Amino acid sequence: MSLITLLTDFGLRDEYVGVMKGVVASIHPRATVVDITHGIDPQDVTHGAYVLAAAYTYFPAGSVHVAVIDPGVGGKRRILAVECGGHRFVAPDNGLLDRVLADRPAASAVYVENQRHFLKPVSRTFHGRDIFAPVAAHLAAGRGLDELGPPVDRPQLVRGIVPGSRFKGAACLEGSVVAADHFGNLLTTIHASDIARLVGRSDRKQVMVHVGGQAIHGIASSYDSVPPLTPLAIIGSRGLLEISINGGNAQQWLGAAKRDPVRVDVHRCRTGPET
Amino acid sequence: MSLITLLTDFGLRDEYVGVMKGVVASIHPRATVVDITHGIDPQDVTHGAYVLAAAYTYFPAGSVHVAVIDPGVGGKRRILAVECGGHRFVAPDNGLLDRVLADRPAASAVYVENQRHFLKPVSRTFHGRDIFAPVAAHLAAGRGLDELGPPVDRPQLVRGIVPGSRFKGAACLEGSVVAADHFGNLLTTIHASDIARLVGRSDRKQVMVHVGGQAIHGIASSYDSVPPLTPLAIIGSRGLLEISINGGNAQQWLGAAKRDPVRVDVHRCRTGPET
Amino acid sequence: MSLITLLTDFGLRDEYVGVMKGVVASIHPRATVVDITHGIDPQDVTHGAYVLAAAYTYFPAGSVHVAVIDPGVGGKRRILAVECGGHRFVAPDNGLLDRVLADRPAASAVYVENQRHFLKPVSRTFHGRDIFAPVAAHLAAGRGLDELGPPVDRPQLVRGIVPGSRFKGAACLEGSVVAADHFGNLLTTIHASDIARLVGRSDRKQVMVHVGGQAIHGIASSYDSVPPLTPLAIIGSRGLLEISINGGNAQQWLGAAKRDPVRVDVHRCRTGPET
Repeated sequence: MSLITLLTDFGLRDEYVGVMKGVVASIHPRATVVDITHGIDPQDVTHGAYVLAAAYTYFPAGSVHVAVIDPGVGGKRRILAVECGGHRFVAPDNGLLDRVLADRPAASAVYVENQRHFLKPVSRTFHGRDIFAPVAAHLAAGRGLDELGPPVDRPQLVRGIVPGSRFKGAACLEGSVVAADHFGNLLTTIHASDIARLVGRSDRKQVMVHVGGQAIHGIASSYDSVPPLTPLAIIGSRGLLEISINGGNAQQWLGAAKRDPVRVDVHRCRTGPET
Repeated sequence: MSLITLLTDFGLRDEYVGVMKGVVASIHPRATVVDITHGIDPQDVTHGAYVLAAAYTYFPAGSVHVAVIDPGVGGKRRILAVECGGHRFVAPDNGLLDRVLADRPAASAVYVENQRHFLKPVSRTFHGRDIFAPVAAHLAAGRGLDELGPPVDRPQLVRGIVPGSRFKGAACLEGSVVAADHFGNLLTTIHASDIARLVGRSDRKQVMVHVGGQAIHGIASSYDSVPPLTPLAIIGSRGLLEISINGGNAQQWLGAAKRDPVRVDVHRCRTGPET
Repeated sequence: MSLITLLTDFGLRDEYVGVMKGVVASIHPRATVVDITHGIDPQDVTHGAYVLAAAYTYFPAGSVHVAVIDPGVGGKRRILAVECGGHRFVAPDNGLLDRVLADRPAASAVYVENQRHFLKPVSRTFHGRDIFAPVAAHLAAGRGLDELGPPVDRPQLVRGIVPGSRFKGAACLEGSVVAADHFGNLLTTIHASDIARLVGRSDRKQVMVHVGGQAIHGIASSYDSVPPLTPLAIIGSRGLLEISINGGNAQQWLGAAKRDPVRVDVHRCRTGPET
C-alpha cells in the first residue's frame, strides 16, 4: 500500500487539490490519496503545523504526508523532505514541520532540489502541482529521500517560528490560541503533558484557565460535565488544551481570536497574560 | 470490495474526517472510503437522518455506513451497529437511523460495546476517530455484528425523535421543512408515496402546497415547467417533496426556515398549518 | 486503471456528490473517482468550462471526465460524450466543453441517449446520479462512445457561448474576468499565448493591464516580484492571465466582479475597455 496525504490552505472551491491528485495518479496509479484537510486558514503556517502533528500518527507507517501552506511560493524558500517517526513529509521550509519535529527527531532530511522528479515547466505560482505532488508520488512509488536533493544541516531543520507554550515559574503555563474548529472550539498551543507536569500532585480542579477575559475553573472530563452554555477547558482529541462551550460556540461566545494569550495556573501565578 | 461511507456534521475545515480515513487505512488498507457528506448542520440529527436514508441505497450492498451526528459524545448515549436492507450502519443511538429503519426493518442490531475494536485510549471528544472508524473498518474487513456487543431490544431501536409527516383527515398531509440544500431547495419530511395516497384519483394539479405563507398550486414535473423565478413544489431526487424556485433560491426568496410547517391538501382541508 | 473525475456546481453540503460515487462503485467497483472540484459557482458554465480545460490534462490519458453544471436539467438540453486529446468527457450540451474543444478537435462525439446505461427511473432533477454517473462508470469499464447514442454533427459541437478573448488591432487584447479563486486571485479569459503574440519582440514590461479601474504595469514573474499589497498581473498556473495582490486578496481590494472587462495593451491602444 502507498498512501499519500494532503494538507493545504487551498480550500475546495478551485481545481487545485483535484489537479494534485491527477498528477499523483499519472505517476503512481496505485497510490491512495487522502485529504487531511484543505481548510487551513490561508497562509497560516502555525495552524497547519498543529493540525499536521495531530493527524499524521493516525495513518499507516510509511505514508507520505504532503503539506502545502506556502506563502513564499515562487520565491527563495526551500522545500524539505523529512523522514520522522516512520513517516515521510514534504513541506516548505517555513516552520510547517516544526510541531512534528518537536515530538521526535528526524531520521533524515533533505532539500528537494532534483528537478528530475518535477513537472516541467515548473510554474511560479503552483508548486503543489509541479513539485510537491510529483515528488510525493515518486516517494510513495519507492524512491529514497537521498534521490531528491542534498541533506539538511540538523540545526537548520526546526525553524522555531511556530509558537508553543512555556512555563513561567513552576505554577504557571502560558500559550496562545491557534485557531477555532468547525464547531467553534478553540485549539491552543498548550500540551496535555505540560498541564500534567504543572498540576503534579495537585487536584485538576485547582487549575484555572484564563482566556479572552474569562477564568475557567478546572479541566473538564467531557463537554456535558458542565451546565449547558457554560465555558469549559478540556484536553481535546489532539492532546492539546481546548476551550469549548457545552452546546455552544466558544469562538463566538468568548470573542476569542487567533494568537490570543492563554494562561493555565495552579493558584500561585497571579500576573496577567502576556504574549 | 469493502466500501465504507461517512456522513457527519464535522465540516471539512479540520482534520477530523481525514483522521478517520487514516484509522480505517491503518486497520483495513484495502477498504474504499467515500464521503456521503460532512455538511450536515452541526448536531442536526433530523437533517442527517433524512440524508442518510436518501443516499445509502445507491451504494453497493454490503457497504458499511458510518453516520456521526453526535451531540452526546462522551456522555451516556450508546452506539448502534445495525444490519438493514443488505447494508450495515454504525451510528449513535439518537434517532439518526430512524429514517433508514422507517423504510424497512433491521435484520439485526447490537450496541457497540466491545472495546477490543476501539482505538486506545478512547478520547472523550472524538469517538468518530476512536470508535466509529475502527469499528467500521473491522466490519468491512469481515467481522460480524455479534462480535461488537449485545443485541438491542427491537422496541428500543427506533427512537421516534425525527419528525415525519402525518395525515390530517383523508385530504390533508402535514409535515415540515428539514433543511435547504446548496441551491436553496427546501427538503421536506413529506414522502412521494403519501402524496400519491393523498391525491388518489384526483389530478395532481388540484393539490395545494402551503409553506412559509405561500400557496403553491400543483406538483411540478420539472423546474422549468413554471415561469422563471416562480415557486414550485416537486418530488425531488430523494423521493421527498421539495420546494424550489425556477432559476432562484427558495430558501432566500421564501424566507423559510427549518422546522417550518408544510401542508399539502386537495381542496378539502382548510385549516392553517400546525407544527 | 479506470479513473473518473467529477467537476460540478453541487457544493459539498449535500449528499449529491457522494451518491454519484455510490452509483459508480455499484457499476464499476474498481474505478477510482477523483473530485476536480464541486465549488464552481452555481450554474456558471463559463467558470466550469475554464476550470475543466485547465485541469483535465493533468490526469492520466484515458480518464473519463464528468462535468455537471446543468441549469437545464430535466428540460430539452442534450448530453454529450466526447473523446478529445486521449481523454473522454461527459457533459451537458451547453458550452461546458467549449474550452476543452478550443484547444484541440474532438476525435469523436455522440449524444448520450441510450437509456440502457441509465439508472431507472430517471429523475427530473438529478441527472448527475441517474445519467452522468452510470454512463461514466460504463465508459470507464470499457464501453465505447458509439454504444451511448448517435454521433454529433461537428458544426454543432462547440456552442460558442463561453467568452474568450479577442485582439482589437495588433496592440490590444480584450477579455474578461472569469471568477475569483479561494485566495481572491482573478482568473481571466486571456491566454498566455495571445499575450506572447501581442508582445512580440517588445519588452513584457511595456505591457499595461487594465481591470476594475486599475492600470497595472508589466507581467510579473512571481507574486513577490512587486512590493507587498501591490496589484500585479501574472500568467497563472492555468496558462491564463490572472490579477493578484502580493499578500492580499485581489477580488476584495479591486472590487472586481465576474464578466468585468480586462484589457492588455502595448502602449498603442488608448480606448477604454469595452465588453
